Amino acid sequence: MSLPPIFGTARLLDDPELRFAPSGVAVCRVRLAFNSRRKNPETQQWEDADTLFVDGTVFKQEAENVAESLMRGAEVVVYGRLKTERYETREGEKRSAMKLMIDGIGPSLKFATARPQKLARSSNGQGNGGGDDPWSTGAPAASGARSGGGNFDEEPPF
Amino acid sequence: MSLPPIFGTARLLDDPELRFAPSGVAVCRVRLAFNSRRKNPETQQWEDADTLFVDGTVFKQEAENVAESLMRGAEVVVYGRLKTERYETREGEKRSAMKLMIDGIGPSLKFATARPQKLARSSNGQGNGGGDDPWSTGAPAASGARSGGGNFDEEPPF
Amino acid sequence: MSLPPIFGTARLLDDPELRFAPSGVAVCRVRLAFNSRRKNPETQQWEDADTLFVDGTVFKQEAENVAESLMRGAEVVVYGRLKTERYETREGEKRSAMKLMIDGIGPSLKFATARPQKLARSSNGQGNGGGDDPWSTGAPAASGARSGGGNFDEEPPF
Amino acid sequence: MSLPPIFGTARLLDDPELRFAPSGVAVCRVRLAFNSRRKNPETQQWEDADTLFVDGTVFKQEAENVAESLMRGAEVVVYGRLKTERYETREGEKRSAMKLMIDGIGPSLKFATARPQKLARSSNGQGNGGGDDPWSTGAPAASGARSGGGNFDEEPPF
Repeated sequence: MSLPPIFGTARLLDDPELRFAPSGVAVCRVRLAFNSRRKNPETQQWEDADTLFVDGTVFKQEAENVAESLMRGAEVVVYGRLKTERYETREGEKRSAMKLMIDGIGPSLKFATARPQKLARSSNGQGNGGGDDPWSTGAPAASGARSGGGNFDEEPPF
Repeated sequence: MSLPPIFGTARLLDDPELRFAPSGVAVCRVRLAFNSRRKNPETQQWEDADTLFVDGTVFKQEAENVAESLMRGAEVVVYGRLKTERYETREGEKRSAMKLMIDGIGPSLKFATARPQKLARSSNGQGNGGGDDPWSTGAPAASGARSGGGNFDEEPPF
Repeated sequence: MSLPPIFGTARLLDDPELRFAPSGVAVCRVRLAFNSRRKNPETQQWEDADTLFVDGTVFKQEAENVAESLMRGAEVVVYGRLKTERYETREGEKRSAMKLMIDGIGPSLKFATARPQKLARSSNGQGNGGGDDPWSTGAPAASGARSGGGNFDEEPPF
Repeated sequence: MSLPPIFGTARLLDDPELRFAPSGVAVCRVRLAFNSRRKNPETQQWEDADTLFVDGTVFKQEAENVAESLMRGAEVVVYGRLKTERYETREGEKRSAMKLMIDGIGPSLKFATARPQKLARSSNGQGNGGGDDPWSTGAPAASGARSGGGNFDEEPPF
């Protein structure tokens, strides 16, 4: 048993909110709107239909990357797991809200380009990036270097 | 009844392949590997585990944006629908393969930043982008303009 | 753009509520809890963790089948799309809640058996069922007839 | 990083195949077809469209329940994770196929009813079931007992 996954394309209703926990861990909140469209059978025009509004949370380096990359109005491809959070209003009333624990997020390429840029976090100024990427393949991902040597040795079975 | 959706984070095994159909429509093929990791209960170390390899297809402007933004080794957040395609080998043998019709894709922000850049396709040099974006909200999405005035009038219910 | 899909295994918090709209269309509401479990790293025991609570809706014949088949406490496999519904409390306060438009639901076979039984709705007493099943294949699905001749002519490509 | 989830409604192309590993663990294979339908814009009729064919695997008690409950032609709601399996043909040719590791499955209630029946595995003949259900809530799930007293003490926050 696990929390139910959810995925899709959404828009940011606000700039991402980046905070740091006392432990130093970065936490980023994004407010998402998943809009749907439907064709009006009478006019044959596409119209706005239902929307899902939900707040999502990202942690650690990904939180900083989100705050660095995205802004209000940006369209993102996103997936995660939903849970119910209970809270109390200032008046002491008990309520609940759904929260999205984001497992993957990035700018949608539907109407925009977005080149990934690996971060230089080492102090040697080399900027080779991928320092904390456990799946680093050594493949060139720096913006600009479009075609790469790299040693991407994973062989697909087809 | 519809084709089953699939989603997750994958790596590009090759640079995207952009082609144009005789009709002029752009088609981009991306070769994806969804890797999994598991903790070895004996060593307590994370190890590579099973992988799903699948070819995906993107169309139109999104195809061009993918080719422009991504490259071999890039990590993407992606979702779409899977179908079985039948084909014949040169020897006349019948086979089948799964294909992913991509509905959303973008660079993962897990280990990289990636600022979306709306394209200027109008000829007036304004470069306000969003020309073919039926959901354009007028929200500022141009790279650089981090905090925006904009008239993002959608009001979330919380 | 469409509403985000969600899926998983949930428990019914109450018996399904079946109603009929003035038009005669059946509508069934189910109250779902998606529980998660996590291993306590200290005790190495599995414990209850976060939960998602959400109300879902099913329509037409499926609504009647749900009311007929499921009850409080039943575990279901379910998927659908989430949307935000706004409403006003009796005090005139504006609020919102997430609703699940269910696209597929059935009893989970994790801890129970459940044999599907096609309904006899035709008046000829034959009870061959599938009357409103646009994808009816003529395959034997009647309870009891476990191994079937049938003319399931769909040929998988492997 | 994990294998990509997939979900939807499918049909069984064959009766489930139940086997027991030397260790005694039950393994059940189901051959699934996810059919899609589309409206022909010229005739305005719904027609069969693309299909995904995939083999799925279930283990342990769930494997036995699947074999006990489902048969060829049955429609199921199902979700799981996809992986690529490599194998060699008798001629020594290397190939690959996608396999579905099923995480949840049950008979679809779209065109059939299906009452879950908890299994009696204890030897006292009481048939109270749920013996190996770590999430057993004590809620009445026995077929026939439609409305239950039960002590389903989980309180949703709405």
